[in-house]
Amino acid sequence: MKIIRFLYQGQISYGILEDQKIEPLKTSPYEGFNPTGDSLSLNEVQLLTPSIPSKIIALGLNYRDHAAELGMPLPKEPLIFLKPSTAAIGPGQAIVYPSMSQRVDYEAELAIVIGRQAKGVSPDKALDFVLGYTCFNDVTARDLQKKDGQWTRAKSFDTFAPMGPWIETDLDPDNLLVEAYLNGRKCQSSRTSQLVFSVPEIISFVSQVMTLLPGDVIATGTPPGIGPMKPGDTIEIRIEGIGSLINHVVKEGG
Amino acid sequence: MKIIRFLYQGQISYGILEDQKIEPLKTSPYEGFNPTGDSLSLNEVQLLTPSIPSKIIALGLNYRDHAAELGMPLPKEPLIFLKPSTAAIGPGQAIVYPSMSQRVDYEAELAIVIGRQAKGVSPDKALDFVLGYTCFNDVTARDLQKKDGQWTRAKSFDTFAPMGPWIETDLDPDNLLVEAYLNGRKCQSSRTSQLVFSVPEIISFVSQVMTLLPGDVIATGTPPGIGPMKPGDTIEIRIEGIGSLINHVVKEGG
Repeated sequence: MKIIRFLYQGQISYGILEDQKIEPLKTSPYEGFNPTGDSLSLNEVQLLTPSIPSKIIALGLNYRDHAAELGMPLPKEPLIFLKPSTAAIGPGQAIVYPSMSQRVDYEAELAIVIGRQAKGVSPDKALDFVLGYTCFNDVTARDLQKKDGQWTRAKSFDTFAPMGPWIETDLDPDNLLVEAYLNGRKCQSSRTSQLVFSVPEIISFVSQVMTLLPGDVIATGTPPGIGPMKPGDTIEIRIEGIGSLINHVVKEGG
Repeated sequence: MKIIRFLYQGQISYGILEDQKIEPLKTSPYEGFNPTGDSLSLNEVQLLTPSIPSKIIALGLNYRDHAAELGMPLPKEPLIFLKPSTAAIGPGQAIVYPSMSQRVDYEAELAIVIGRQAKGVSPDKALDFVLGYTCFNDVTARDLQKKDGQWTRAKSFDTFAPMGPWIETDLDPDNLLVEAYLNGRKCQSSRTSQLVFSVPEIISFVSQVMTLLPGDVIATGTPPGIGPMKPGDTIEIRIEGIGSLINHVVKEGG
């Protein structure tokens, strides 16, 4: 099942997408699936971020092939950081290149969307707390990441957390192709089988630290091939079994 | 004016506190000040976090005397990190010592509470976006901070962001005494005149990166004298012109 959040005639709703047809829901999917009985076409609506996360947690250095590329040892525990909810944008929205940075990179990632409150869950129970999965672009001001040491500023600019286009609920996250295409040219390509920490291990670890709330997003790390974008570029994050998240880059104030 | 958020007979409201008397408000203070006309006593209610932040931004190494204590150069730009909203607790609530850490420290800080949406504001306009100020304890798992390099895990445990007891709206933040008392013994004492980056500079800088929303909290950094707490301890953050934020420490699962 594909869950979307969309704008139609000035109103924001959740819905279920099937074959370009939308079945709008009365409530959020976290409260159950209650269709309104209406039907809309995908081309009539504007897609928004498929969830409204209270927080976005992301992982550093979580692909074996990416760690090998960097010549770095594999981490013994997940390395987590946060991106603010104000950074979230949906498919088709612009990534704004901030004047504070001279180097803004894409990072293709599989993101987990939490379905119900989770605290201190074990890996074998972790998938029970997942609503589904979506494509995520962990946009990063690489120069500021190096300069600050702490990654927060580099990862937190408005528009630096594109996600979507929808939440796929029926998906085994163990071995999915994760790719990025910059202006149509493939620049990242790996499989989630390369994850150092698996989806259940990640959820369990993060939930030992902080309570996960419905709609919270965990981005699972990026494979090799990260690189810079510039204003005018189009970046696509494509994940097997989900679809494509496409955003374009514009200059701040432009 | 002192703004509180409180629980009374199962209902959560905002209110204005004056001489132990509470004037409940019909709405949040971000929507204006509309008293219900009722009156309550402070000792009838339970105080909660005075705001519900969508995000908590905090600063590292922002006191001159603290930087000198550590023998570190003064930062050229504010060094920011995030704490999740799920870490927030109010006055009197327990700080839970997580089993993942062997060293949990207090950090007394002056916190700014944002009153209205701010993006890209200049320092000379920054105070227009402030609702007021409150006491903040930037609780930190020091061992995990060192181990991870990134500070997120160390700063993000549930209960690691005590704030309160209220928001003081009539306050000049330039030269306030900021103190911490562990079990009644003074362990931190400095003045906000020692801040490397002033309150308006901090707000301006953060708002260049991310949109600040009503209720968002910015913790302005901690003075010298940080140190460990253990289960059973009581920690008080006292700030001149605001008041005292008191919390106790309990063991996880205890």
